[in-house]
Amino acid sequence: MNPLSTTPDAGRETPRVLIRGTGLLGASIGIGLRADGHEVQLSDPSGTAEAIARDIGAGSIREVGDPDPEIVVIAAPPEVVAEEVADALVEFPQAVVLDVASVKAEILRALRELADGRADEVTPVDLTRYVGTHPMAGREQSGPVAARGELFTSMPWVITPAQDPATGEQVPTQAAVAWAEEVARRCGATVHYMDPQEHDDSVALISHLPQIAASLVASRLQDAPTSALALAGNGLRDVTRIAASDPNLWVQILSSNAAPVVEILHGLRDDVARLIRTLEDPRAPGSQADIAQLISEGNSGRARVPGKHGAPPQSFARLIVIVDDRPGQIAAVLNDVAKVGVNVEDMRMDHSAGHQVGMVELSVLPGRRDELAEALTDFGWKVVQS
Amino acid sequence: MNPLSTTPDAGRETPRVLIRGTGLLGASIGIGLRADGHEVQLSDPSGTAEAIARDIGAGSIREVGDPDPEIVVIAAPPEVVAEEVADALVEFPQAVVLDVASVKAEILRALRELADGRADEVTPVDLTRYVGTHPMAGREQSGPVAARGELFTSMPWVITPAQDPATGEQVPTQAAVAWAEEVARRCGATVHYMDPQEHDDSVALISHLPQIAASLVASRLQDAPTSALALAGNGLRDVTRIAASDPNLWVQILSSNAAPVVEILHGLRDDVARLIRTLEDPRAPGSQADIAQLISEGNSGRARVPGKHGAPPQSFARLIVIVDDRPGQIAAVLNDVAKVGVNVEDMRMDHSAGHQVGMVELSVLPGRRDELAEALTDFGWKVVQS
Repeated sequence: MNPLSTTPDAGRETPRVLIRGTGLLGASIGIGLRADGHEVQLSDPSGTAEAIARDIGAGSIREVGDPDPEIVVIAAPPEVVAEEVADALVEFPQAVVLDVASVKAEILRALRELADGRADEVTPVDLTRYVGTHPMAGREQSGPVAARGELFTSMPWVITPAQDPATGEQVPTQAAVAWAEEVARRCGATVHYMDPQEHDDSVALISHLPQIAASLVASRLQDAPTSALALAGNGLRDVTRIAASDPNLWVQILSSNAAPVVEILHGLRDDVARLIRTLEDPRAPGSQADIAQLISEGNSGRARVPGKHGAPPQSFARLIVIVDDRPGQIAAVLNDVAKVGVNVEDMRMDHSAGHQVGMVELSVLPGRRDELAEALTDFGWKVVQS
Repeated sequence: MNPLSTTPDAGRETPRVLIRGTGLLGASIGIGLRADGHEVQLSDPSGTAEAIARDIGAGSIREVGDPDPEIVVIAAPPEVVAEEVADALVEFPQAVVLDVASVKAEILRALRELADGRADEVTPVDLTRYVGTHPMAGREQSGPVAARGELFTSMPWVITPAQDPATGEQVPTQAAVAWAEEVARRCGATVHYMDPQEHDDSVALISHLPQIAASLVASRLQDAPTSALALAGNGLRDVTRIAASDPNLWVQILSSNAAPVVEILHGLRDDVARLIRTLEDPRAPGSQADIAQLISEGNSGRARVPGKHGAPPQSFARLIVIVDDRPGQIAAVLNDVAKVGVNVEDMRMDHSAGHQVGMVELSVLPGRRDELAEALTDFGWKVVQS
């Protein structure tokens, strides 16, 4: 089949896919697409990464003489993506080529430069077959060992078709875009469309800024006294969780999206400087109002962060059940929850150093909370409304 | 009884307690101590807060003619704590007086000033009966409605006995300190001892800095396009969770601990400025190494944050179970976990916009993970090792 001449709706076609780059994302896509019936070929400059990806079921290693892929997914490190996309477009003149890098505008710019530079060659770099995409499903771990087919389940996958700067028309064919969307859907993701620069501005704010903030806070803990760290609570744990991310990957992401990130960091630096001035004389007129404003603005921003399932922020009601910290207790609670027929939308354990009692925080639809609290109390649980 | 002449070990004595300030902390302490058999008196300048605290079982409202308390807990806003402690020491000349404010050195300084100023009065402010403490169990919500007796369960409660600046000797009597510790223990907390300034330096780093970082990141989301927020993942959610905190409380906390916070913010501002310079020319020699170093330092700091139960960081192994998002599924998983006899140390739901499949991440002792994964697979669950 030629995916450029068909649409994903034409039956349940499963084009042959080549994945170049078998790290966390590439291997996870391979597992996901194979589960969906696709033949998946793998290649990676690292023989080890290739072999691990094959062994965990991401596909078979592409050999000389294998049939050409109909879809190529470039899952290489951001700094080599443009080159790899250009090569694949030339090598497989019938294939749709996607990339999955975390930044989009600079890759497109580099790719256009490459295409212009090779315009006089026999096989030009045909950008009508390229679709930029970004599955937003990173993890703190990396490499094919961390891969799993469910990595993308319910996660946003952004598709950023290029526009011709002169005419404003979409560069990739509609069939290529439709197949990019189909790959995302078959991996279980939720598709969003954006302009490449709009994507980069968005991730600078909602992904790159939090990463930088987490790393900056965590880096100050390096030399902290152990006695101070012993007081750490869920606040510190939550703020610093993503500080465990891979330095090499983030060098490439931040370098490739430097302009939007720098703009945000200017604002951050100004806010920090303002707060320093305020706290240098916290009893001066206006100081208290200044601090209150910072925290209030944080309240407003936080209230805009969507909850899980994309639910409106804070739309769930919470209640807390006290349990002994031994096998079966949490299951017993949830069993009783199930008897009442209430769905648990989110769940969190909350306990800290030294004790053997846990608190299970359950998030449920607000209309069901009181009923659930009452029923659990009747079942003998210690319930605290939150 | 006179708690100053007894020790907490002398039987199971339950001194009469007065709690001044019936917000979240005061009301929660009342509920905790009443459950432990103490007679608890309440007072608050707000009649409403007082009545709510009484109605939720935190104690009875103190009336004229009531017997004197033997322990007084000042749970007032930080800015009035010193005055309230001094008044209580004078009003109840036999009582041990504690406070539970989030900052300790400035309160002690203000209290010493008050004591010096009243040194010539008939009843001096007797600091040998005052013990500063800080239960580290705030929540995003505030007010007595949010109170619960289990608020302190397993949480750190720092006790900061003053030292005489001249002699270095402990100012409060050992009996007073022992009763402060006993109040913390009877509320279920884990006790830590620190010097007041050491406490303030510690919380500046592990509590006030994360709060500021979360608020600063969240405040930039105020004007973000909705399409950008739709891409928000767990990273952003975790980093900004505590940005929902109470502005009035944080004005007082940050104002009262300004010096250590400012010192840390200077470092933060320098780091942000350095990162801006680096990202203004990300391809310059040394730029890539600079960015990598920031993220690596974050890795090191993050690795020092203790896990829940005070366990060494990352000492649990994780595995992920895919479940349908309907009532009873999580219970069914945990039921099967219980059958295997493995204890769940931590648990997290992981799912996002649009889909109705959930991932339950279970943290267990590393030695039990493979066995559990195998058993759950046998039970028919879709298990992914993390």
